[in-house]
Amino acid sequence: MRAPDELRALVEGAIAELELTSELGALAVPMRYALEGGKRIRGTICLATAEAAGCLPTEAIPAAVALECLHAFSLVHDDLPALDDDDERRGRPSAHVAFGEGVAVLAGDGLLAEALRLALGYDDQEIARELAVSTLGMIGGQHLDITRAQVDLAELHRLKTGRLFAASVGLGTRVAGLTDTEQAPWRAFADELGLLFQVVDDVLDGDGYAERLGAEGARRLADEAAERARARLGEIEADTDTLAAIVDELAVRTG
Amino acid sequence: MRAPDELRALVEGAIAELELTSELGALAVPMRYALEGGKRIRGTICLATAEAAGCLPTEAIPAAVALECLHAFSLVHDDLPALDDDDERRGRPSAHVAFGEGVAVLAGDGLLAEALRLALGYDDQEIARELAVSTLGMIGGQHLDITRAQVDLAELHRLKTGRLFAASVGLGTRVAGLTDTEQAPWRAFADELGLLFQVVDDVLDGDGYAERLGAEGARRLADEAAERARARLGEIEADTDTLAAIVDELAVRTG
Repeated sequence: MRAPDELRALVEGAIAELELTSELGALAVPMRYALEGGKRIRGTICLATAEAAGCLPTEAIPAAVALECLHAFSLVHDDLPALDDDDERRGRPSAHVAFGEGVAVLAGDGLLAEALRLALGYDDQEIARELAVSTLGMIGGQHLDITRAQVDLAELHRLKTGRLFAASVGLGTRVAGLTDTEQAPWRAFADELGLLFQVVDDVLDGDGYAERLGAEGARRLADEAAERARARLGEIEADTDTLAAIVDELAVRTG
Repeated sequence: MRAPDELRALVEGAIAELELTSELGALAVPMRYALEGGKRIRGTICLATAEAAGCLPTEAIPAAVALECLHAFSLVHDDLPALDDDDERRGRPSAHVAFGEGVAVLAGDGLLAEALRLALGYDDQEIARELAVSTLGMIGGQHLDITRAQVDLAELHRLKTGRLFAASVGLGTRVAGLTDTEQAPWRAFADELGLLFQVVDDVLDGDGYAERLGAEGARRLADEAAERARARLGEIEADTDTLAAIVDELAVRTG
């Protein structure tokens, strides 16, 4: 099993070499800008899952890159003034600050469509289907986030963050050819992993669960989610060491 | 062969009954709003092509609805203040005026993702692939439109309008099971149809080709495109009467 950093480097290299559709023309520039600098958590989880589930991690690279394109799409549109209005992203000006709002809207659109095009490169159409449905859930979550003052945090996060984490694991198992029944324990793991990620995110940002439960309460919730994620991995009959290392990383991350 | 109006009613009925992904939640409201009131030209062309190419038009309904979702997505994002800044669409307030800019961005995203989900309902993955690639071309065309003062009009329109017209015919032939070779003459027809639509659009709006060639010159260009479209239909060994009726409609439309 390759270590998380080795898989991360694979994702990073594939993004650097990604051939965007030529008809996008100069829109490729803001799209690449939006893809730069991410931690590649989703792509790395996808490769780690695929390898643990029995295939070469390289087979999962198009799926991993598609997940990172979708994540970048969601950030570009979330950052827009009419949504979260964030001027900075990954330590640089957000896409709309660097390229203007109109171009940022189109760059996000392009990333969404490219993600699905990449997923459609697999013979197994279920891969693109899962990605499309996950994207729709994520968009629904973002809508909940900007429109409701009093919202069920668990439901919001299950959609806005959780759907893409679930897809990261789900696509990895699909690329490896696992049946729906075989995928079930992996998906139970993915749910805890998504929750872990989100709660730690809220602790770092001082909002969401940290606001609701206090920093200490949220920290405890994160530890419990990490514990359950490890327990779920223990129930899977495969070498899940790399996924366990990813759980450890997510539990202690500071940025 | 069913008349254009009969096919249009099929598309309209399918859009009215379209089940959007439940996780979109209340975002379904602005999405449906954006879908209302269209002329259903692309969906109707898709059904007419499918029937002429030898299948039941009903088999092409998911593809036709996907095309209309994509068209609605492009309008919602184009109308945003940061792009074309249009406050009115189809005789009503644009989506961003009715629901706010942030919601309009997400509604467009949702329509794009729903279109691909619908296309993924077919066993033939080429249908979703063609839709994804056409969407990317359309997005590239919109980017050309908002960023370049001096742009090649033919290239701009081939992407921004033509890609979706080509897909309307292309998906119809794919649903009917035509091979790539068999599709070729239909696609030659689609190119002329897209040009016809765009030039007439420019004549009605007084911009684009009408601005460049004058109203009379643009009118002549439209007539030539219609003539070539009819000639292309004549080369297809199938009953293309409904498609010919659509050419006639597009050539004389006033709105």
